[in-house]
Amino acid sequence: MLFQVEMTVKLPPEMPVERAAEIKASEKAYAQDLQRAGKWRHLWRVAGSYSNVSIFDVEDNAELQDLVSNLPLFPYMEISVKPLCRHPSSIRDDDS
Amino acid sequence: MLFQVEMTVKLPPEMPVERAAEIKASEKAYAQDLQRAGKWRHLWRVAGSYSNVSIFDVEDNAELQDLVSNLPLFPYMEISVKPLCRHPSSIRDDDS
Amino acid sequence: MLFQVEMTVKLPPEMPVERAAEIKASEKAYAQDLQRAGKWRHLWRVAGSYSNVSIFDVEDNAELQDLVSNLPLFPYMEISVKPLCRHPSSIRDDDS
Amino acid sequence: MLFQVEMTVKLPPEMPVERAAEIKASEKAYAQDLQRAGKWRHLWRVAGSYSNVSIFDVEDNAELQDLVSNLPLFPYMEISVKPLCRHPSSIRDDDS
Amino acid sequence: MLFQVEMTVKLPPEMPVERAAEIKASEKAYAQDLQRAGKWRHLWRVAGSYSNVSIFDVEDNAELQDLVSNLPLFPYMEISVKPLCRHPSSIRDDDS
Amino acid sequence: MLFQVEMTVKLPPEMPVERAAEIKASEKAYAQDLQRAGKWRHLWRVAGSYSNVSIFDVEDNAELQDLVSNLPLFPYMEISVKPLCRHPSSIRDDDS
Amino acid sequence: MLFQVEMTVKLPPEMPVERAAEIKASEKAYAQDLQRAGKWRHLWRVAGSYSNVSIFDVEDNAELQDLVSNLPLFPYMEISVKPLCRHPSSIRDDDS
Amino acid sequence: MLFQVEMTVKLPPEMPVERAAEIKASEKAYAQDLQRAGKWRHLWRVAGSYSNVSIFDVEDNAELQDLVSNLPLFPYMEISVKPLCRHPSSIRDDDS
Amino acid sequence: MLFQVEMTVKLPPEMPVERAAEIKASEKAYAQDLQRAGKWRHLWRVAGSYSNVSIFDVEDNAELQDLVSNLPLFPYMEISVKPLCRHPSSIRDDDS
Amino acid sequence: MLFQVEMTVKLPPEMPVERAAEIKASEKAYAQDLQRAGKWRHLWRVAGSYSNVSIFDVEDNAELQDLVSNLPLFPYMEISVKPLCRHPSSIRDDDS
Repeated sequence: MLFQVEMTVKLPPEMPVERAAEIKASEKAYAQDLQRAGKWRHLWRVAGSYSNVSIFDVEDNAELQDLVSNLPLFPYMEISVKPLCRHPSSIRDDDS
Repeated sequence: MLFQVEMTVKLPPEMPVERAAEIKASEKAYAQDLQRAGKWRHLWRVAGSYSNVSIFDVEDNAELQDLVSNLPLFPYMEISVKPLCRHPSSIRDDDS
Repeated sequence: MLFQVEMTVKLPPEMPVERAAEIKASEKAYAQDLQRAGKWRHLWRVAGSYSNVSIFDVEDNAELQDLVSNLPLFPYMEISVKPLCRHPSSIRDDDS
Repeated sequence: MLFQVEMTVKLPPEMPVERAAEIKASEKAYAQDLQRAGKWRHLWRVAGSYSNVSIFDVEDNAELQDLVSNLPLFPYMEISVKPLCRHPSSIRDDDS
Repeated sequence: MLFQVEMTVKLPPEMPVERAAEIKASEKAYAQDLQRAGKWRHLWRVAGSYSNVSIFDVEDNAELQDLVSNLPLFPYMEISVKPLCRHPSSIRDDDS
Repeated sequence: MLFQVEMTVKLPPEMPVERAAEIKASEKAYAQDLQRAGKWRHLWRVAGSYSNVSIFDVEDNAELQDLVSNLPLFPYMEISVKPLCRHPSSIRDDDS
Repeated sequence: MLFQVEMTVKLPPEMPVERAAEIKASEKAYAQDLQRAGKWRHLWRVAGSYSNVSIFDVEDNAELQDLVSNLPLFPYMEISVKPLCRHPSSIRDDDS
Repeated sequence: MLFQVEMTVKLPPEMPVERAAEIKASEKAYAQDLQRAGKWRHLWRVAGSYSNVSIFDVEDNAELQDLVSNLPLFPYMEISVKPLCRHPSSIRDDDS
Repeated sequence: MLFQVEMTVKLPPEMPVERAAEIKASEKAYAQDLQRAGKWRHLWRVAGSYSNVSIFDVEDNAELQDLVSNLPLFPYMEISVKPLCRHPSSIRDDDS
Repeated sequence: MLFQVEMTVKLPPEMPVERAAEIKASEKAYAQDLQRAGKWRHLWRVAGSYSNVSIFDVEDNAELQDLVSNLPLFPYMEISVKPLCRHPSSIRDDDS
């Protein structure tokens, strides 16, 4: 089951540079693990911003909550979620 | 080059049913042509709405304008566009 | 799987009274069928408005889209959807 | 008398981890007490967020204010309230 | 139990003048009946607008819904509702 | 001359508890003085919030500014003001 | 007593040209009468728009309501009102 | 050439009182100099707020930027600007 | 003197196709005249929309109002205006 | 390929003056380098603000992201991006 998730990172300006680097590194590792596991299906940068557009593929709402709330950057992001489903005009098999 | 395009259809309630069906049919044909041509890479329905989330793959801004402004439903939609690019944490080859 | 759905009805003022009554009657029948089927778990009026707050219990996003987009009042409503899941502080067995 | 209450937690990033854990623990105890007392009828997590959707069942507006303003997380939440009442299409006895 | 209700009238410009006058007259009669009954406790015009600020005194949310949704101008108004209760700094006996 | 004033208190989370208590105590004393003087005619808590709805009765705009800007909580509040006047449907003598 | 009033004209596109011209002519006459009477102290066009910024000088809120609600364009305008008073840094005698 | 400028002061709550007083004093001197020079034509307090409505009379956009960006409170204000010009219904000679 | 002007066209769906074509043709002629006269310095389409971003070069606010309010599409557009001036980091001679 | 980029600088008030001066100096150098390279085609100050309107000329979305995210002020700015393309009414050769 697919969800579009948009995330905008807002790190507090007073966070020490090393702490920020640490969180970003664990975020990257976590994101790549989920991509390898097939849970985080797409991940794009929105050009000109510190935001991404992502497509998650999860079992249910509970798994979405589990994956998103464990993002290392979760406390520092504005996140919006849209549930997706197959569009009647789609011709692509795996867009459901 | 990728763009996320979100479209919400707002047909005027006074539009005759046949006219609406006609526009929707040509919209569907147009959308499927662009998908086959590789220009409209993803197309999802937002569950519980008359909206979609789409990913377009175009040469440049001008082609995006050309494709979107020729949508049969274009005069009846609210559309928002976000330019996308490769995310440094992405592991997927074709997400650029 | 649960979703909160908020709906606000905006009938065009020029709609004939009988037509409005007809749509509302079929909306009521449809809503009561879905409640009996266990799909539309809660349905409340927001006091002082022509809006409701609802809880849907569906298989997945696709079923949510199917049920909501077939509401007789669907073309005349503003609808917002929030995916829900179990809250770690909940003590109620069926709130998942 | 029912109210929908939506709460989004915004803890200041500089709050020490132990202080946050302490507040969350007392919030959980308080929430479970109110659920047992029948005052906090439903409590759901909004998937992909640090928000909940709740249904309170109170005597009157004053009791709602009393219960909500005593939440341990009250100073750190954005809260919105909607008064609810029976919907004419509801078939469920206890949705009033 | 008190509620603040703010109403802004938006009559469609194409409504015939006599029809508008008719609705406004029945609105006035209805509003004065509710004031006499003690249900509509205060009614003020917002200066420079076609809006009012009102205080309703009702048994519960259901009565609020009943009174507001039967306003003759109800289909033509934007309405917002705030539940009120006694303020700890109030010295006025009947402000509860 | 009447004004509706809505105030939402936003104390900075890092303010020491005693300092907050001090400001709130002087706010309460000030609010009760103005109520006794007939200047702050109504004061209600918005249920489920740290906000109030108030009705001020002042000589003119300048007095409103004087009274509001001297609130001890003034630097910590979001405030909105609406000028009020008699509604043509009001039957209450003192609602002007 | 001064008020800033901002008005944006939104004539329905289907209004016949002669009807629009008629309303605008009576609006102009009315505006000039109020300026001569000293009630409408300033009137500026916002460049690039069909909006104005105005300063009214009235006895009280009731007179503001009377003058504004009798504007011939009143049913076709979005209007916002701000009560003004003397600024402590002003050096101009008549800015009160 | 006239501009309407609206300014809302948002001093950080942690700014020392003396520092705030210092900035406000230089702001006042600066504002009065510009008024005497005929550049800051009107200056009103918005009643019930820490905002003002101002009318600037400048040579061009560059002078507006120069005057506004040198306000001692500039880093602590939300500012909005509207270019003004003569209104066709104005009868006042100096409102251009 | 430069202004950024953003325009979004919202033609009423019921406007006859020929009438729309007529207005668009005169809009195009008018726009090209102003470009040739050096008044409309830049004109870009926003990709994926029926909007443009424009830079006007005018004598003063009054000329901006004159040029913009005479656009054939003026009654059918949402327009926003920003006054521009030289940026201290600009190296381009004609960007003032 | 052109993009309109609007940037508003929001430096935290507690940033030391020298640190701010340092960042602004490197921002200026960076901006002038990109202008000389033809990547940052236009740069205007929005009069009365700490904002700019810019036109970037880049190869693709990825280059836009690269240039913008490396702005020294990037962590302290609100940025919005609009993809531009040739307008059918433009007569200027280099506005594509």
